Amino acid sequence: MSGEREGGPAVRFERIALIGIGLIGSSLARVVRRDGIAPHIAVCARTHATLDTAHELGIADTTTTDPRACVEGADLVVLCTPLGSYGAIAEAIAPGLRPGAIVTDVGSAKVCAIADVGPCLPEGVHFVPGHPIAGTEHSGPEAGFAELFEGRYCLLTPPPGTDPGAIERVAALWRSAGMMVETMSAAHHDRVLAITSHLPHLIAYTIVGTATDLAGEARSEVIKFSAGGFRDFTRIAASDPVMWRDVFLNNRDAVLEMLARFTEDLTALQRAIRWGEGDILEDRFARTRAIRRGIVDAKQA
Amino acid sequence: MSGEREGGPAVRFERIALIGIGLIGSSLARVVRRDGIAPHIAVCARTHATLDTAHELGIADTTTTDPRACVEGADLVVLCTPLGSYGAIAEAIAPGLRPGAIVTDVGSAKVCAIADVGPCLPEGVHFVPGHPIAGTEHSGPEAGFAELFEGRYCLLTPPPGTDPGAIERVAALWRSAGMMVETMSAAHHDRVLAITSHLPHLIAYTIVGTATDLAGEARSEVIKFSAGGFRDFTRIAASDPVMWRDVFLNNRDAVLEMLARFTEDLTALQRAIRWGEGDILEDRFARTRAIRRGIVDAKQA
Repeated sequence: MSGEREGGPAVRFERIALIGIGLIGSSLARVVRRDGIAPHIAVCARTHATLDTAHELGIADTTTTDPRACVEGADLVVLCTPLGSYGAIAEAIAPGLRPGAIVTDVGSAKVCAIADVGPCLPEGVHFVPGHPIAGTEHSGPEAGFAELFEGRYCLLTPPPGTDPGAIERVAALWRSAGMMVETMSAAHHDRVLAITSHLPHLIAYTIVGTATDLAGEARSEVIKFSAGGFRDFTRIAASDPVMWRDVFLNNRDAVLEMLARFTEDLTALQRAIRWGEGDILEDRFARTRAIRRGIVDAKQA
Repeated sequence: MSGEREGGPAVRFERIALIGIGLIGSSLARVVRRDGIAPHIAVCARTHATLDTAHELGIADTTTTDPRACVEGADLVVLCTPLGSYGAIAEAIAPGLRPGAIVTDVGSAKVCAIADVGPCLPEGVHFVPGHPIAGTEHSGPEAGFAELFEGRYCLLTPPPGTDPGAIERVAALWRSAGMMVETMSAAHHDRVLAITSHLPHLIAYTIVGTATDLAGEARSEVIKFSAGGFRDFTRIAASDPVMWRDVFLNNRDAVLEMLARFTEDLTALQRAIRWGEGDILEDRFARTRAIRRGIVDAKQA
């Protein structure tokens, strides 16, 4: 699935600036190294400890805690930080961006990304919002691996009028990582991801929290007897708390809408359980198998 | 993890009757074959097609659609059917049970199992309710495999006064399958499983149903873009609809109680999202990592 081809990589940059070097940023850095996409990776993080780790992992050529210094001379800047940091980072990097530079991001909500970043960027800089739909429950630069993206989808949500050449170069970067790239509006992205990613995480965090609150012995037993379904939720609920806080704060309307639909449906099943309406339960449970088959057929299982 | 030891299996029966030969029943049959636990496996199922499959898989010595005929001469009877069938099956097999026979089951709710089966069994027959906490999203005799149970817990919930020798023989059977066996009250079992298994399944069925109801294009997109958390829910929601219908009908009170707690907690998070209370979200999300660590440490991940 790698983008390496005869005659060199499918896309090339001179200097890639990664703002943030967690699971996604460090995985992308490994792809860039593997495929020879850029001779220089500049990494920005808030702590020297993180930057030292990036150095030791061999995924950073230069490191700094200053976002503006990081982007100097870069022809590609990738924001890999929690969504809540976008506004401040965009303001900080704006004076350092070189003309023609492409700025992209990997955030899980896109309307807010465009609202927070777009207005800060100078004329002649291209903003191509992106979202590689891939991840694990692990965080930090050590958690990354180049194969994280393989066979998954990356969604780009460029505002109307975005330079097609810039879009294509970002798309080529993610195709090099093994992703299938699609383009859609930011608003549509946020609605679809609200149901396929944001709501599942909210629910997983909730039920694991509910179990955590159980008194005494029952709490240790939920750990021992988690194989009946619960453990899958605990994996999802081990995801990065700050990243997910920012997703919910920044995709509020779509999440609340999907949550309202979910709660209606859950209440209907609750009522069927209370009144012993087995036909309703069986009917609802049988319907959901079709979606699973679709996911298996689409090789996303 | 197999129970096979020098000098023969850790437990031996003359004739094991399996009522139902789905994922769990057929996996247990494979363990019995592998470890030489019984020279004869009698299988009962509702359809000849299922029985033919069991024959072809080599996991049945005799087959019948008549539960009473199946248990004739058996010293161990294992109910591996949905919970809703227990009462009728117990009534049907009672006249065929030989004195001293052990009856056990694999159902996911235990108070109802005792209430439905116990009163039907004749004097001198031992009932040892059991629940091997293992499974996949696949159903039917072809889905079984002997390793399904390895490293997982099996809970036994014998009523007070149950013959200790009978309990030990059922425990030895599941240990042979590689399980860790614990004993607890049926009521306690039903409460713990309500949060670790039943509620997760109800929630997974619900959210996949909510997504299924989305109009038009969004429905196909939830399949393509499911890698962000949703696909794990679809796997759980692909479990057997009839089995799960019966779990919810038969563990109603514990499920409704845990569901009420969950809904309270979800509503609190919903409010925090609506009002932009990031501290509350981050705090709740950070708490749940401890449970995940516990599950990883307990080798149940």
